Amino acid sequence: MFLKNCWYVAALDHELIDGKLLSRMVLGEHVLLYRGESGKIYALNDRCPHRGALLSHGRLEGDSVRCMYHGIQYAGTGKCLQIPGQDMIPPKLRVRSYPVEQRSHFIWIWMGDAEAADPALIVDLPYLHDPQWKGIPAYLHYDASYLLIVDNLSDFAHLAFVHTRTLGGSEEYAYVTKPTVIERQQRGFRVERWHLNSDPPPFHKKVIPDKTSKVDRRNIATMLVPGIFTMETLFAPAGQGAQAGNLAGAREYRNCQFMTPETERTTHFFWSYLNNFEAQDSTISRSLLDSLIEGFMEDKAIIERQQRTLDEDPSFQMLAILADAPLAHFRHVLGKLIDAEQSGKRSTALPGTVHA
Amino acid sequence: MFLKNCWYVAALDHELIDGKLLSRMVLGEHVLLYRGESGKIYALNDRCPHRGALLSHGRLEGDSVRCMYHGIQYAGTGKCLQIPGQDMIPPKLRVRSYPVEQRSHFIWIWMGDAEAADPALIVDLPYLHDPQWKGIPAYLHYDASYLLIVDNLSDFAHLAFVHTRTLGGSEEYAYVTKPTVIERQQRGFRVERWHLNSDPPPFHKKVIPDKTSKVDRRNIATMLVPGIFTMETLFAPAGQGAQAGNLAGAREYRNCQFMTPETERTTHFFWSYLNNFEAQDSTISRSLLDSLIEGFMEDKAIIERQQRTLDEDPSFQMLAILADAPLAHFRHVLGKLIDAEQSGKRSTALPGTVHA
Amino acid sequence: MFLKNCWYVAALDHELIDGKLLSRMVLGEHVLLYRGESGKIYALNDRCPHRGALLSHGRLEGDSVRCMYHGIQYAGTGKCLQIPGQDMIPPKLRVRSYPVEQRSHFIWIWMGDAEAADPALIVDLPYLHDPQWKGIPAYLHYDASYLLIVDNLSDFAHLAFVHTRTLGGSEEYAYVTKPTVIERQQRGFRVERWHLNSDPPPFHKKVIPDKTSKVDRRNIATMLVPGIFTMETLFAPAGQGAQAGNLAGAREYRNCQFMTPETERTTHFFWSYLNNFEAQDSTISRSLLDSLIEGFMEDKAIIERQQRTLDEDPSFQMLAILADAPLAHFRHVLGKLIDAEQSGKRSTALPGTVHA
Repeated sequence: MFLKNCWYVAALDHELIDGKLLSRMVLGEHVLLYRGESGKIYALNDRCPHRGALLSHGRLEGDSVRCMYHGIQYAGTGKCLQIPGQDMIPPKLRVRSYPVEQRSHFIWIWMGDAEAADPALIVDLPYLHDPQWKGIPAYLHYDASYLLIVDNLSDFAHLAFVHTRTLGGSEEYAYVTKPTVIERQQRGFRVERWHLNSDPPPFHKKVIPDKTSKVDRRNIATMLVPGIFTMETLFAPAGQGAQAGNLAGAREYRNCQFMTPETERTTHFFWSYLNNFEAQDSTISRSLLDSLIEGFMEDKAIIERQQRTLDEDPSFQMLAILADAPLAHFRHVLGKLIDAEQSGKRSTALPGTVHA
Repeated sequence: MFLKNCWYVAALDHELIDGKLLSRMVLGEHVLLYRGESGKIYALNDRCPHRGALLSHGRLEGDSVRCMYHGIQYAGTGKCLQIPGQDMIPPKLRVRSYPVEQRSHFIWIWMGDAEAADPALIVDLPYLHDPQWKGIPAYLHYDASYLLIVDNLSDFAHLAFVHTRTLGGSEEYAYVTKPTVIERQQRGFRVERWHLNSDPPPFHKKVIPDKTSKVDRRNIATMLVPGIFTMETLFAPAGQGAQAGNLAGAREYRNCQFMTPETERTTHFFWSYLNNFEAQDSTISRSLLDSLIEGFMEDKAIIERQQRTLDEDPSFQMLAILADAPLAHFRHVLGKLIDAEQSGKRSTALPGTVHA
Repeated sequence: MFLKNCWYVAALDHELIDGKLLSRMVLGEHVLLYRGESGKIYALNDRCPHRGALLSHGRLEGDSVRCMYHGIQYAGTGKCLQIPGQDMIPPKLRVRSYPVEQRSHFIWIWMGDAEAADPALIVDLPYLHDPQWKGIPAYLHYDASYLLIVDNLSDFAHLAFVHTRTLGGSEEYAYVTKPTVIERQQRGFRVERWHLNSDPPPFHKKVIPDKTSKVDRRNIATMLVPGIFTMETLFAPAGQGAQAGNLAGAREYRNCQFMTPETERTTHFFWSYLNNFEAQDSTISRSLLDSLIEGFMEDKAIIERQQRTLDEDPSFQMLAILADAPLAHFRHVLGKLIDAEQSGKRSTALPGTVHA
């Protein structure tokens, strides 16, 4: 059961160049995504209603697409335009279309009631549009439910054990740090966590000149339904009072991750990790891309195994520890929204608050 | 649910040489096919009733077969002949046998009530026995229901889009031609379609000396339950009045295709494509074999994807266009025969009419 | 449905060296097996009760193991020792532990009620501890129910047909020999079978100097629940009256095989094949290891195909021949023990009698 009346990331802009008919399953539905010759992006159900052939195996003609089994042509709106050898077009012979919107490099799709698809509900992340912030948008596929990825991102303690030699830096992180803020929101949560006087973690050390001095590290993360994660990370020289507000000489990162269910047990994972200090030195964003993929692979091994554990024994009940409070709140909020949607009530569909 | 009281092609004659114990699933049952040393062909259920070992992993002994797990020997009739170390043979210990008949290069099997297996019900295709007609019988496996292959063959419009550069020749075919005859029969249908003044399609152009002159093309096809397709194709010089009966200088082909369900969602596909003009030049039938395989591969990609679409969403209801009238009739006829068989009535089991 | 209140072999001793965290599914449960730094062996349910991560992907710390997702540490008893960042340990947060015992090279596990796990119930095979008997313990995985392997071992007639050129030696074995003793026991059966004046079978011929003289061969086998097979094999010079007790110049083997269900349809198969005549010539036990594997591979092909046959058609009812009496008794005995266990009665849990 998915939340349908909300925006999900469905693709990256570079995936739709050169007339590509991109087939992607979203929330269990086969979707064809393409950019017409006019430049407009379309999303259609990827199944010809005649005999079920894939429209993504068809042919782009202007802004329309032709099924290459019996030649039936559909507009980007889903309307049937032509049946070779037949003049009358039955009104039922049309394809479902989905609202799509592009925001910076991300293509968003609305899988629910099309009339409720308000583009203002797309979460606004200003750094994605700001030329000072550099990053390389990327994609990973997970053989696991998006909820297990949400869980993973909701407790930073895993940085200590899963990512010791990549994103975390030391096991100490799990023992000496705790969230300083846990803010429950209507559509998610916001947490803040400081790690004082620590070694810079490997991914950060690689891209800075001073590889030895201790740092004070701050992570501020938000998680919003249906699976939108953002994190602001800051490394300030240790001991100068960053926690009290002195951020002189700090390095900052912005991280956004979008989890889109492919099916109940697989996920499209889009993200961008941005920095504001590389200027013209693109080795930095490329190094960060590699570091993040390295870290995500560590998560992926655990998360996909968790999924198999759940598949093997659906009766398994996880046992919460104190650190699970934010993820428990998130699942509660999401569950209530899905219930409301299923019972016919219109979701309030607030875009959520990334900043407090 | 299959129609059982009818003949299906189970194998080609060359598959059973050299004592081969051929294991093939037909209508969901594992069948062992072999030719005994006497020359007679047998079909047995491919499962030793003792512990379920495969008889096709056993040993041919004369016209009998011995299970090589505990050495039990069965005649081609299914009767148990020997149990090593035991004198008394329990009457229940026998294997089911199926009626089989050979007609030219094709081995036919009857999976239903053996007493109803009348060899006269095997469809008679005279060109398969006529030395003037040359062709190479061949086999393909489809990961799709035989019904989707029947559908494919029932609408020639797909020639235009799927086979433009192989069997079809142009997209024009779908726009300017329509069946001139659609004849509903008790056990299938017969359609006739002309394409006047067209370029010869690639598969034909390869095997004729005159590669530029326009042709008038006639296809006459029949489809009979449970999945027997025949097509007579004729190419006459354009403009001489072929449609009115002047067939001087025409080239002709005979095509028969036999769809045998392996399971509800997989199919054995046997066929032969024959010509009557190659005389001693076997490059022609070999080129036609290649061309047909090339074309079938184009169909296969679409049809197997259709099967996956149906597997993924069994609730999907296809929407008919006008060209689907013959296939709708075929499914109706087949469905009624299966219903009658299931409710215990003997099928009339007419062999069907290939010629009007 | 498995018999749970009994001992199964779970691993070989060499699998647990060097701090290995061995993950093995036993009776459908993921089990972590390891030897702590103290030398003691532990078996824990291989699933962190917090978020379901595998403990076998964790880290050995002394005799404890730490989950490397969020760092939770468990003792070998299953007790939670530490949650990083949290002082209070919830009593529910513990892992199930299973009784384990080592006997010679085999590690035994008890999957049922831990309080009933009496080590005295482990079957005692003296030759496994006797330095005169040499063998190399080994492991095979079967994609088949352990019951089909038990069946296979219960009728020696298959030696004639399956193992003609490896363990059997001739098809004659099935025709001229029959069990001389079939002893039904409370927890299994014991059979004895002689083959007089036969050629030595290939596996034996390889390791003896006299490769031509005829031999009298005796097999004494026992099968005990849940799947413990032993066989004493003896080859005496033919004609000297071995059957009447003259065993001068005989060569003997001891064979034990332990079938442990991985799931309802897959099996861990542990075995050792021992001889008492190699002295310092280890080529003999290594040749026997190869010969046995060669023979087991012949069985494996048949048994795994049987499993697929049963999977494909669960309604298939095997038909017994006379030689199936021992296996029928075994399945009857095992079925009654499982029924008793399921209905809450304590199994009598006798270790069974390998010798009469």
